[in-house]
Amino acid sequence: MKDTLSAAVVLIGNELLSGSIQDKNLAHIAKELEVRGIRIRETRIIPDIESEIVEAVNHLRQKFDYVFTTGGIGPTHDDITSDSMAAAFGVNNVIQQTVFEQIDKRFKEKGIPFTKEAQRMAYAPQGSEIIASKHSIIPGYRIDNVFVMAGVPSIMRLMLEGVIEHLNTGLTIHNKAIHANVGEGEIAHPLGIIQDQHPNIDIGSYPQDKNSEFSDYRVIFMVKGTDLEEIQITCDKILAACKDRGHDAILA
Amino acid sequence: MKDTLSAAVVLIGNELLSGSIQDKNLAHIAKELEVRGIRIRETRIIPDIESEIVEAVNHLRQKFDYVFTTGGIGPTHDDITSDSMAAAFGVNNVIQQTVFEQIDKRFKEKGIPFTKEAQRMAYAPQGSEIIASKHSIIPGYRIDNVFVMAGVPSIMRLMLEGVIEHLNTGLTIHNKAIHANVGEGEIAHPLGIIQDQHPNIDIGSYPQDKNSEFSDYRVIFMVKGTDLEEIQITCDKILAACKDRGHDAILA
Repeated sequence: MKDTLSAAVVLIGNELLSGSIQDKNLAHIAKELEVRGIRIRETRIIPDIESEIVEAVNHLRQKFDYVFTTGGIGPTHDDITSDSMAAAFGVNNVIQQTVFEQIDKRFKEKGIPFTKEAQRMAYAPQGSEIIASKHSIIPGYRIDNVFVMAGVPSIMRLMLEGVIEHLNTGLTIHNKAIHANVGEGEIAHPLGIIQDQHPNIDIGSYPQDKNSEFSDYRVIFMVKGTDLEEIQITCDKILAACKDRGHDAILA
Repeated sequence: MKDTLSAAVVLIGNELLSGSIQDKNLAHIAKELEVRGIRIRETRIIPDIESEIVEAVNHLRQKFDYVFTTGGIGPTHDDITSDSMAAAFGVNNVIQQTVFEQIDKRFKEKGIPFTKEAQRMAYAPQGSEIIASKHSIIPGYRIDNVFVMAGVPSIMRLMLEGVIEHLNTGLTIHNKAIHANVGEGEIAHPLGIIQDQHPNIDIGSYPQDKNSEFSDYRVIFMVKGTDLEEIQITCDKILAACKDRGHDAILA
């Protein structure tokens, strides 16, 4: 897509792979980024294993403009993201004095011992830029083109507000959706022609479950691009193709 | 984890990356596999781009016992999974005569033209084993250790029922969850010791959002393994560690 930037997301945590916890961060990050002209081109969900984090981050940071990670920056034994990130960049994971003092103060107020394990939350790879948040004492950070955030959705969202200020932006990516009562097999041919006519527009076709929460219609077409006028022309053609074949279709 | 098999999942589709559609397949696949002793060790979400599908599948099928893909096997221009899978294995994507005849019959019954595009649903890479489903005329298939399924959740679930009969199994993976009102910073030290005492057990620690749908408690500990007795011993130790520090904790 013209004049957009690319990104990858790495969701770190065994719980996401085992179905115990349903990720809610990817969709939120994607929507915030698309407004700013940044498209997510790949997402990996990986376990809390250092070699896996190193491999994913080192591959993706060279391939895309930005990488965003979530998860693994707390104090417990399975929180190994910062150690792994330091390994990926070949630097030490070092104490961040200001962060340390903030967490220390908070723990003292609460009367909780600031153990060696809890102190790990104040570490980040050497050369990182801490991205402070008004709302969370544990900050996210940036190292080169990689942004490291928490896994808990409410904390991740607050961190992302700070992260966004550090990003270059492209042209805003717009979406329109068409809901249609046409079978994919019947519309595939004209849809392919329309896609070929508009290579800068991304047309997706998504058949719906009968009990879909999204639609009473059989298919949703998603029409994406940076040019609102071209999106509208594309939508008009898809609507006409459905109606020409006697099927109901609406711009959602 | 002892005596378990490994798997990767590849979720194919632009819509999943852009936040337009929330994946529901991964958690379902994970739960069905864990009962059968197969753990998902990596998941990739990738766009409808052949080179990306080829790269992901060829990497993952060598690294893990099984690979499961969802999405991209319909008739529209963005359905390129079977072509890509054929490219990954260096074979042709060929017509499956029985499947072709089934779909042709269904289309005739419905009075829909069986176009060239719709006919693509009857193709699979040379050497594939079609995995028939009682419920869907479009079957999933297996090629070597890779299983290809639909993206629409209701169809994927039906295909998975057939796929499961083709899998070797390991020891069933069991889960227990503890909900506790303890801060992660406070429990991290004893939790690390308990994890070290039970290397065959996988202890995850997941702080909860205040408005979590899962729990009124601050943290959920997930305790996983193949040995039910060792899981229980591990849970008892975690419960005791919470209670020793004056915090409420329950086995969920």
